[in-house]
Amino acid sequence: MPTSSPSDRTKVRRHAERGAYDQDLIHSILDEGYVCHVGFVDGGHPYVIPTAYGRVGDQIYLHGSAASHMLGVLEEGPEVCVTVTLVDGLVLARAAFRNSMNYRSVVVFGKARLVTDPREKMEALRAFTNHITPGRWEEVRTPTEGEMKATSVLALPLNEASAKVRSGPPLDTDADCELPIWAGVVPIRAEAGEPVPDVRVHQDALPFDTARLARQ
Amino acid sequence: MPTSSPSDRTKVRRHAERGAYDQDLIHSILDEGYVCHVGFVDGGHPYVIPTAYGRVGDQIYLHGSAASHMLGVLEEGPEVCVTVTLVDGLVLARAAFRNSMNYRSVVVFGKARLVTDPREKMEALRAFTNHITPGRWEEVRTPTEGEMKATSVLALPLNEASAKVRSGPPLDTDADCELPIWAGVVPIRAEAGEPVPDVRVHQDALPFDTARLARQ
Repeated sequence: MPTSSPSDRTKVRRHAERGAYDQDLIHSILDEGYVCHVGFVDGGHPYVIPTAYGRVGDQIYLHGSAASHMLGVLEEGPEVCVTVTLVDGLVLARAAFRNSMNYRSVVVFGKARLVTDPREKMEALRAFTNHITPGRWEEVRTPTEGEMKATSVLALPLNEASAKVRSGPPLDTDADCELPIWAGVVPIRAEAGEPVPDVRVHQDALPFDTARLARQ
Repeated sequence: MPTSSPSDRTKVRRHAERGAYDQDLIHSILDEGYVCHVGFVDGGHPYVIPTAYGRVGDQIYLHGSAASHMLGVLEEGPEVCVTVTLVDGLVLARAAFRNSMNYRSVVVFGKARLVTDPREKMEALRAFTNHITPGRWEEVRTPTEGEMKATSVLALPLNEASAKVRSGPPLDTDADCELPIWAGVVPIRAEAGEPVPDVRVHQDALPFDTARLARQ
């Protein structure tokens, strides 16, 4: 499997055993998440903004209104940090000090690039839609030229990315394991509920099958 | 309900109609999330790190190993931005351009303060544990003096916080509503699965009831 060497920034320092630089793992975490958190500096202050994203190969794409403050700042090409976190479980230990969470996260550092090529931009918009629901782009009404103009798309390469993963049971001391307190892991998953059709949904529209949302 | 006036930074600019400064709403979003994303600037570069948190009144607490890089940076008292995001639904429109997500998010700006008072520190550790599972602190083995020393706790006031909420159906144009494409909302929830007991769980320990995790 392709791997990359950690840079000074992506090297996982705290709990280094949880760090991973494997591209397939990084891609799978990015593909499973719905929201990323974009960090940037504006006027010397840090900002962390949640937003949707899509991945094509070894780049992720961010988008937003051409009038968005965040997109405006990012178009200038400053350093950004984009983080995706999946909570997999609550790790309940017998000792409060040993409580933890099982998770998979990816942190990407880099400079975003404004996508100006119309073909790349359309491909990125396809990735946003199909990231949420595979195959959905092929069913929906694709963007007009006006809608394309109203949307800014930014690309961020994944060459400075790392994953961090914690899994498994709580790690209580032997002495604490003697305590009559339940300990273990409660799995947590983002589950889809029953789809709620729009009131104006067309009578010929096929119902939506949530099995389409299944992550690999 | 108590509200606060938005500061220049917390004022929601893009989709201002989604902005909210109501304290009860801000608290309820913070209480429902499991993970926050902490943004800070180190060496001029933005970092976004996922971590657990707890709330007591109008402050949130962050914690970590006294040896953590992030905690070390934050103890210096720089500006931070802490964001919590809950994904509530996938908003599938007939037009790709109108796809969206239903979510509730909180963004907090401020300077973190290292908690040195032992009583406040213990109260914060209680908040971390009971944030995940109400009442759990009262059951587990509480921290020793050594464990307290190994943990750094930081407080961040909520006086510069804002919420942003999107809910409801997709907003397709009238013309697009004529298309025979399913449109609507797929609700998304963080659901708990069957608890997995630790292999060494004591025979007298009561099983864990996931109903305890229910958010208000």
